[in-house]
Amino acid sequence: MFDPNHDPLHEATIGSELLFEGKAVALYRDRVRLPDGSEGVREYIRHPGAVLIVAQLPDTRLLFVRQYRYALRRAVLELPAGRIDPGEQPEACARRELLEETGYRAGVWQPLGSMHTCVGYSDERIDVYLARDLIEVGAEPDDGEFLEILSLTPDAAEQAARDGRITDAKTLSALFLALPQLRG
Amino acid sequence: MFDPNHDPLHEATIGSELLFEGKAVALYRDRVRLPDGSEGVREYIRHPGAVLIVAQLPDTRLLFVRQYRYALRRAVLELPAGRIDPGEQPEACARRELLEETGYRAGVWQPLGSMHTCVGYSDERIDVYLARDLIEVGAEPDDGEFLEILSLTPDAAEQAARDGRITDAKTLSALFLALPQLRG
Repeated sequence: MFDPNHDPLHEATIGSELLFEGKAVALYRDRVRLPDGSEGVREYIRHPGAVLIVAQLPDTRLLFVRQYRYALRRAVLELPAGRIDPGEQPEACARRELLEETGYRAGVWQPLGSMHTCVGYSDERIDVYLARDLIEVGAEPDDGEFLEILSLTPDAAEQAARDGRITDAKTLSALFLALPQLRG
Repeated sequence: MFDPNHDPLHEATIGSELLFEGKAVALYRDRVRLPDGSEGVREYIRHPGAVLIVAQLPDTRLLFVRQYRYALRRAVLELPAGRIDPGEQPEACARRELLEETGYRAGVWQPLGSMHTCVGYSDERIDVYLARDLIEVGAEPDDGEFLEILSLTPDAAEQAARDGRITDAKTLSALFLALPQLRG
């Protein structure tokens, strides 16, 4: 198997420092040995990982959430997603987040792949699931989580991506991975 | 026009604190007033913004870079991209980054839209450009930047996305936006 430690691009860790551990993010600064032998600095966030759910209703529509994203100072149209709790399995997290955010349970779950959202400064990975056979049982948002639920057909979702109404990269990436399977 | 301050999901800033200003990221912690009147905390990164270039050769192949991403402890296959310098216009940044990373200049530039990469904890926006009429003039990587250049046909790029060889969300998102225009 390919060994990333023997990759000619490999950067070896010299030292690592936790700069800040917050509620949502932990920020590190590491000293590294670069491929040419010189020394460099890498600042990055450690993230517990997350899941995203492409949840399709029987009439083909997809569930979206509109959620205020403070970093952008505006609400963002996204596919349902959430952060993995300590010790939680990704698919269990996907079931929990779908229920909490949208109030639906799904009978059929299918993994669609993984993505890395900010490779330049975060180790965050998002596992993408396709959820079908949905049954509405009622939303249970987290404390301090406020969101609106809406639904779009696969064609309308693709159009919203192409005309700039969807700019969230995890949502664009997941639509790209899922769309071939979503059209009746 | 829609006023985001009157959005029912709006979170008003009570106070803002710069926790850390590094070489690559600035981390803030703000106190906010939530829609139900309670108080919350938001930790997030301020980022200068970036560009991504979908650069297509006359034979339809797209230029990719393989670059070590220390946060992930491995090299990642990505479309060329880079951070906007202070005062720099996004398209000027795209021309500079394409030249520095791949050694190509493009005769034709077309904006394809924008994305937000980490809406949960960063304000980073990436503007996507399609670059054509490429001429090779020789790469000029930044100090401390080590990368390999490769090229894939649009079909091979889509296949690499679907089979998990491409996991970088900005690259997946840009392929989704660009692919309809990339096939002969």
